[in-house]
Amino acid sequence: IGETYAHQGASSLRMQEKMVQNLLTQRCLPPQGWDDQSIELLLQQLSLMDSNNFKGNVGAGEREARVYSSLVKSRNYGMAHGIGRSGDIMAMQPKAAGSSLIVQLTNYMAAHALKLAGMPKMKCHVVPLATGMTITVSLLAMSRRRPDAKYVIWPRIDQKTCLKAIMSTGLTAVPLPNALEGDMLRTDLAAMEAMIEELGAHNVLCVVSTTSCFTPRAPDKLVEIAEMCKQADIGHLVNNAYGVQTASTTQLITNAIRKGRVDVVVQSTDKNFMVPVGGAVLAAPSSDSSLLNEISSAYPGRASMAPVMDLFITFLSMGAQGFTELLQQRKQVFAQLKEGLTQVAEKHGERVLETKVNPISLAMTLSSFEDPAGRANITFLGAMLFARNCSGARAVSGVEKKTIGPFEFDGFGAHADAYPVPYLNAAAGIGMTLGDVTEFLSRLDATLTEFRKKLSVKSKAGEKTEALEGAPSEEV
Amino acid sequence: IGETYAHQGASSLRMQEKMVQNLLTQRCLPPQGWDDQSIELLLQQLSLMDSNNFKGNVGAGEREARVYSSLVKSRNYGMAHGIGRSGDIMAMQPKAAGSSLIVQLTNYMAAHALKLAGMPKMKCHVVPLATGMTITVSLLAMSRRRPDAKYVIWPRIDQKTCLKAIMSTGLTAVPLPNALEGDMLRTDLAAMEAMIEELGAHNVLCVVSTTSCFTPRAPDKLVEIAEMCKQADIGHLVNNAYGVQTASTTQLITNAIRKGRVDVVVQSTDKNFMVPVGGAVLAAPSSDSSLLNEISSAYPGRASMAPVMDLFITFLSMGAQGFTELLQQRKQVFAQLKEGLTQVAEKHGERVLETKVNPISLAMTLSSFEDPAGRANITFLGAMLFARNCSGARAVSGVEKKTIGPFEFDGFGAHADAYPVPYLNAAAGIGMTLGDVTEFLSRLDATLTEFRKKLSVKSKAGEKTEALEGAPSEEV
Amino acid sequence: IGETYAHQGASSLRMQEKMVQNLLTQRCLPPQGWDDQSIELLLQQLSLMDSNNFKGNVGAGEREARVYSSLVKSRNYGMAHGIGRSGDIMAMQPKAAGSSLIVQLTNYMAAHALKLAGMPKMKCHVVPLATGMTITVSLLAMSRRRPDAKYVIWPRIDQKTCLKAIMSTGLTAVPLPNALEGDMLRTDLAAMEAMIEELGAHNVLCVVSTTSCFTPRAPDKLVEIAEMCKQADIGHLVNNAYGVQTASTTQLITNAIRKGRVDVVVQSTDKNFMVPVGGAVLAAPSSDSSLLNEISSAYPGRASMAPVMDLFITFLSMGAQGFTELLQQRKQVFAQLKEGLTQVAEKHGERVLETKVNPISLAMTLSSFEDPAGRANITFLGAMLFARNCSGARAVSGVEKKTIGPFEFDGFGAHADAYPVPYLNAAAGIGMTLGDVTEFLSRLDATLTEFRKKLSVKSKAGEKTEALEGAPSEEV
Amino acid sequence: IGETYAHQGASSLRMQEKMVQNLLTQRCLPPQGWDDQSIELLLQQLSLMDSNNFKGNVGAGEREARVYSSLVKSRNYGMAHGIGRSGDIMAMQPKAAGSSLIVQLTNYMAAHALKLAGMPKMKCHVVPLATGMTITVSLLAMSRRRPDAKYVIWPRIDQKTCLKAIMSTGLTAVPLPNALEGDMLRTDLAAMEAMIEELGAHNVLCVVSTTSCFTPRAPDKLVEIAEMCKQADIGHLVNNAYGVQTASTTQLITNAIRKGRVDVVVQSTDKNFMVPVGGAVLAAPSSDSSLLNEISSAYPGRASMAPVMDLFITFLSMGAQGFTELLQQRKQVFAQLKEGLTQVAEKHGERVLETKVNPISLAMTLSSFEDPAGRANITFLGAMLFARNCSGARAVSGVEKKTIGPFEFDGFGAHADAYPVPYLNAAAGIGMTLGDVTEFLSRLDATLTEFRKKLSVKSKAGEKTEALEGAPSEEV
Repeated sequence: IGETYAHQGASSLRMQEKMVQNLLTQRCLPPQGWDDQSIELLLQQLSLMDSNNFKGNVGAGEREARVYSSLVKSRNYGMAHGIGRSGDIMAMQPKAAGSSLIVQLTNYMAAHALKLAGMPKMKCHVVPLATGMTITVSLLAMSRRRPDAKYVIWPRIDQKTCLKAIMSTGLTAVPLPNALEGDMLRTDLAAMEAMIEELGAHNVLCVVSTTSCFTPRAPDKLVEIAEMCKQADIGHLVNNAYGVQTASTTQLITNAIRKGRVDVVVQSTDKNFMVPVGGAVLAAPSSDSSLLNEISSAYPGRASMAPVMDLFITFLSMGAQGFTELLQQRKQVFAQLKEGLTQVAEKHGERVLETKVNPISLAMTLSSFEDPAGRANITFLGAMLFARNCSGARAVSGVEKKTIGPFEFDGFGAHADAYPVPYLNAAAGIGMTLGDVTEFLSRLDATLTEFRKKLSVKSKAGEKTEALEGAPSEEV
Repeated sequence: IGETYAHQGASSLRMQEKMVQNLLTQRCLPPQGWDDQSIELLLQQLSLMDSNNFKGNVGAGEREARVYSSLVKSRNYGMAHGIGRSGDIMAMQPKAAGSSLIVQLTNYMAAHALKLAGMPKMKCHVVPLATGMTITVSLLAMSRRRPDAKYVIWPRIDQKTCLKAIMSTGLTAVPLPNALEGDMLRTDLAAMEAMIEELGAHNVLCVVSTTSCFTPRAPDKLVEIAEMCKQADIGHLVNNAYGVQTASTTQLITNAIRKGRVDVVVQSTDKNFMVPVGGAVLAAPSSDSSLLNEISSAYPGRASMAPVMDLFITFLSMGAQGFTELLQQRKQVFAQLKEGLTQVAEKHGERVLETKVNPISLAMTLSSFEDPAGRANITFLGAMLFARNCSGARAVSGVEKKTIGPFEFDGFGAHADAYPVPYLNAAAGIGMTLGDVTEFLSRLDATLTEFRKKLSVKSKAGEKTEALEGAPSEEV
Repeated sequence: IGETYAHQGASSLRMQEKMVQNLLTQRCLPPQGWDDQSIELLLQQLSLMDSNNFKGNVGAGEREARVYSSLVKSRNYGMAHGIGRSGDIMAMQPKAAGSSLIVQLTNYMAAHALKLAGMPKMKCHVVPLATGMTITVSLLAMSRRRPDAKYVIWPRIDQKTCLKAIMSTGLTAVPLPNALEGDMLRTDLAAMEAMIEELGAHNVLCVVSTTSCFTPRAPDKLVEIAEMCKQADIGHLVNNAYGVQTASTTQLITNAIRKGRVDVVVQSTDKNFMVPVGGAVLAAPSSDSSLLNEISSAYPGRASMAPVMDLFITFLSMGAQGFTELLQQRKQVFAQLKEGLTQVAEKHGERVLETKVNPISLAMTLSSFEDPAGRANITFLGAMLFARNCSGARAVSGVEKKTIGPFEFDGFGAHADAYPVPYLNAAAGIGMTLGDVTEFLSRLDATLTEFRKKLSVKSKAGEKTEALEGAPSEEV
Repeated sequence: IGETYAHQGASSLRMQEKMVQNLLTQRCLPPQGWDDQSIELLLQQLSLMDSNNFKGNVGAGEREARVYSSLVKSRNYGMAHGIGRSGDIMAMQPKAAGSSLIVQLTNYMAAHALKLAGMPKMKCHVVPLATGMTITVSLLAMSRRRPDAKYVIWPRIDQKTCLKAIMSTGLTAVPLPNALEGDMLRTDLAAMEAMIEELGAHNVLCVVSTTSCFTPRAPDKLVEIAEMCKQADIGHLVNNAYGVQTASTTQLITNAIRKGRVDVVVQSTDKNFMVPVGGAVLAAPSSDSSLLNEISSAYPGRASMAPVMDLFITFLSMGAQGFTELLQQRKQVFAQLKEGLTQVAEKHGERVLETKVNPISLAMTLSSFEDPAGRANITFLGAMLFARNCSGARAVSGVEKKTIGPFEFDGFGAHADAYPVPYLNAAAGIGMTLGDVTEFLSRLDATLTEFRKKLSVKSKAGEKTEALEGAPSEEV
């Protein structure tokens, strides 16, 4: 072939090498997302750096990363050593140089993504644990610093996972009721101060605060909590499950770090970066990431690489531009959802709750749909929506009782013992499109009309209960 | 096309349906392994049962299993909801019926695999955690039953992971030194009894015993330990990391369950079933699986599905026949490795240690390779082998010192403060072939010759240390 | 899991079955494109209907579709029998019911796609041959009807492939020069009539007319040619390589069929449907598809299934809506390209040729870029654009001489012995985006500026020649 | 990570580069097969050399290799330009340097594979056409050399494809009946000589001889035919469909080339190299490959790359060692099939035909299974076997009549008007295993027993006909 053309082909190969070089030296999201071929090419190059893929390697140990199924091998790009060593979940594995590079690069890209989202100067470890278990291992590591401090102050948030994450450590969770401010449920700072005093600061391991939540609960007053923790010399873990995607939340965290104490911030990979469930970004201020390192080095043994690999691929595929576009799109979609939900609410004689501080979750009241016998029927609406292929919307009665371990909650799901009205939640998460909003509102409208009709007919108790159990209301 | 031929095509499709039907009703490994196409077909059918793959689904929640990258979507077969709910890691997810089925079926197939290997009547949960973290969550759950019992008796096994798994819970590990019996290091039962008495049985949460280990350490005397635990009413967790593949080990566990107390048995998925690192089979006697259920229901939130999916695919691909053939092949390979290693040892003036109780790991002495200045040079042999593409063989000096948390170990790596000789370990793990054995022995022979030459030349301290650190000796 | 949720999962599976059912019964493009998972699921189901994938099949023949490489197996979805039988390229294969179904369905969907594009009532065979070879086999089949007719009248179109397609049959091509009408080169109907008379209609096998071509050549005057063929009782093959994507072209063909004679119409799959090179849609009016059937049944033996499978997947993925949207988008992009090219031309003192009849290809003059020594330098511009990552644009000098077999052409590439001006071609093909147009025009502008600078410096003969040879100008 | 380990990882990457380098410089099958990961890595690197995968490429032509479906893109590794240019099917494509390299390398590796199989010194073009169409294009190119020679002498072989391949060119096939020698049907050399004389050598374009065929037809007497062609100055095309896998056949061809005239030899890729149907290796003696080049350069336009890519992957995956092992295994399997078939034949009162010259196909007589009314019932046995998942075995009555174009054949399928006995064919093709043989013989035995029982009951005509039509007996 002509020289010009051969030259072009070779320079295309070199451009791929250049992209890889940039990734290794700049250690951040590529400015533009990579195409799938370039990503797979890199994965296969890295895979060849793992010892189980060396030509002529012979294994005489008990763990040699032999893979039986070719499907399994292929979907893991031949990488089988997992991540971590006995010494540290983030440690390089001598047997798996390629896998180890992926871990390191993903950590760096996660820090870059947080920076783009509004949290600069964080050090990140991407762990193959979802948020709940990540909180557990974080608390265990915290606890080794102050073994005698047994209490964890927990501003009430009605999702089982966070509470169980505390309980599974053997520590004692102390729920702090929320204060009603207008329609919103917010951190009761005075009560928290009193609680610390009552328990004794030296007995309090930390506060676990929450940023992202279903409205009408608002993100916790993070700056004030951080200041209080600094003052009282107690730890502060922020559960920022899906808060990376909203600028007001990342700003809140950044402020809290600046003005007070934040030890670690936990965020879900699936909820913020559109990967399958299974990972978390464990972040600490780069000014003091000592706890972060302690958490990682306390991790016993190795772990699955899968969630890290999913995020690595996704970061390369998105690029910085793709990620920031997704953040902008989400913001627009939230505005549209709010406007549309207001219209639907008005049409059915209801209103949207005033919860300006919550940047992702909305709620419309369902007062006129209450059964004469009580609100319990309300949750059935969630099941009706799911049956119409609307997932994620939660109908909250506010009269549910729930027992979790030693705790008994009234009004579970509503974050308060007695929230004034029943309501329906809807959220505008990253990746939602305008088309989704339109379709959701249209189905909601139709379902509400149908639900109103059903109200005249007595609904059977069995259906109600079943629908309730299945509802994804309590999961984070 | 002719009727005969159309009929044949349709009946082929029905045979696939029949295979799926059998899997769902019989809930065990298929007699014969499935081909890859049939496995992928089933995965895609199950994937369609997850709500994020419903045609026309609209998500209005904060977690909608949207997947950004088509590569990530494809390698996860479109399944993105992970496993577990806030209530239980093993719970069905209403939003993900297909994923949930995979979890259940994998649990059943794991129990069948254990049965085939010699552990009948076990109930299994396949968890997306490697063995170390699985031990941690197991101990945490145990601890909730008896919050005041703080001690964990741990017959010494020189791998950091297990010790760290205990330490990370906040419990206090109490190492029990091994007794030298001939060449072997075995459980010191008398000392264990004395230890329980000294600590007070009510203060001892449990014993963590180990079955699979590097020789000359032998599998713990499980039956006697189990009897002692039953007697003293303390818990018993068996770390059976790679013991599923050896019949004498599974027999040992089965006997221990029959005669004494075993609460849970932990086994690695990657070491026994040839999948990438990341999962464990947590098993309990089906006669009393209460702790198993408590462990799972204490798990906070969701988790990655990847390790479960890898095992699901592998089980279908292996089938019962494939798995039993692998077990048989391993047994033969072990015999060949033993014979060959004996020959190499003799050639170099060494001998193979007499450790009949250990069915998987062998050791040849390295006495004649010691440096005049001490044994520390021995570990360099491991690095030399790795550089010659032999992974997994460990050269143990027996004079290493190691500090792990509050513990200081002499002779770390050798499971004893002062094992009489330095040695080299080699193991015959599942999937090793006769060709691997031949090649390994040939390279070992050459490396020993070369190593002997180097001995006359002073080896530099730097090399030695580096080689040592990188050595995979301490990892499980 | 709750009944509601299990029900949803099952109904999702049934929806997939329903989609397959619709495809089998309605035999046309699905209204909406399918997702990749549903497509792969169907492919694997069909694959199981091929005998080589029957469980327990034993082959004792010389062709058993055994596939060595798992990569090859996977990329062909386990289908290995190819298409066709010795009797007919379109015949069902008894050994491969699944593959055969794909062939039939793709034929039906191709007919539907032509209908959507403006060619209703066509019968289609998708053949695994590109357009050139498809024309060859069509002419061979035509020739068996009238073995004594040796001439093929061919209105000149400067691409080697079509001429070679005629030559390789052993028939005698007779080029018909185009007539200059304004800027356009159009079919010289009077000359064609004279040519038929001169050769004797009984000696003329057919006319091979062309619809899609680089401007300033216009699509042939198809209606008049078809009428002439009908009158003279000679065959008529339409080379419609990339004409499916332009409504005026499909309308032209439809009119020609209605008013005159069209035996078969040949269109490229890659150029119209965005698949890799390798297939053609061979279409005939459903009112008389006898030649179509003769062509297929004259095909000796089997053939690759790959181009058919690519088109099958693509049709399912596009759906009717996706395809019509692409057609609309192309039309808009063409308008934008025309506008933008006009601006660039004006800026550089040139103009866009007036060629309204050509709906896909545009040309701007390059008169002011001619070298004093002659126009030959013009082609260098094409190589410069390719080196700047602009592919597909052709710089035509109009003074190229070319010998193809017995034919010597002046002004090759320009479709005329002496086209008045040199020019640059650009086309708006299906799948081109507005972004592509903007980027192309920007680079063209810059390249023209640079080219003008180079003109002052004598360009070396070597470069020129090389650039010319590599240029993709003559390929269809 | 330690230096030693980083070094190992990097050297693993360099080993892959070395393998690629060797491939490019040595241009033959790698000594050992490559693993799938290394193959995919190379494919993706080559893909990046195609212009459609250049970062930032903008297309302004009518063919820009845009690919709509991500599934299609992925299964073609992003390569979409096909192979060939208008000038030559084997020409490099300037727009697709990577694809072009694959074409060239596959040609070289095919020549190496032929050499390993016993045909040294051949030049090969791998064409994306199955054997039938490859014969057609070869004859068309031959015909351009001597346009007046219209006859093709064709020693009778009862498979439609080859005859149709001749017929579709417009040339006149002249069948030459076989001579019965013992059980075998062999080339009637005297008759061939007479035929040439009768037709006039200047009127005979060529002989199309056949090497691989169903016994009792033997491979043609190639050496004598080649000598006769040389003498008479007429062409000689060898149809070597599946003859690469048998050493006696490759030896025969090599001898014929040495002693007489062979213009081109056509072999199937799927039948010899275990890839899906769709390609052929067109080979010519490297001492005179002029016809080979003429065939390729007469090919009009581009073609699908798929069959070439399948073969490229397979060659890399097999390596020289894998291919030679397959050849050896086939030879052993043939011996076993012969022995086993002899036993089954004896048990049912039949015998295996004495056909020593045929190295791949066997036949056992079915004389005792004839219906009193005639032999037509015999073909039903083939359908019975297919219904029992035995494909490829052919039951030949020897009394079938068949019309193909102007030809009427008696005893079609038996290669002779009146072969003395009906029989069943079975072949030992490449990739068949000992397990296949055992299973086939067992099912054959059972089916014969059952067939004998059916004979007492009148079989219905409908079944018989249907079975016959579907039977794969005539396909090559």
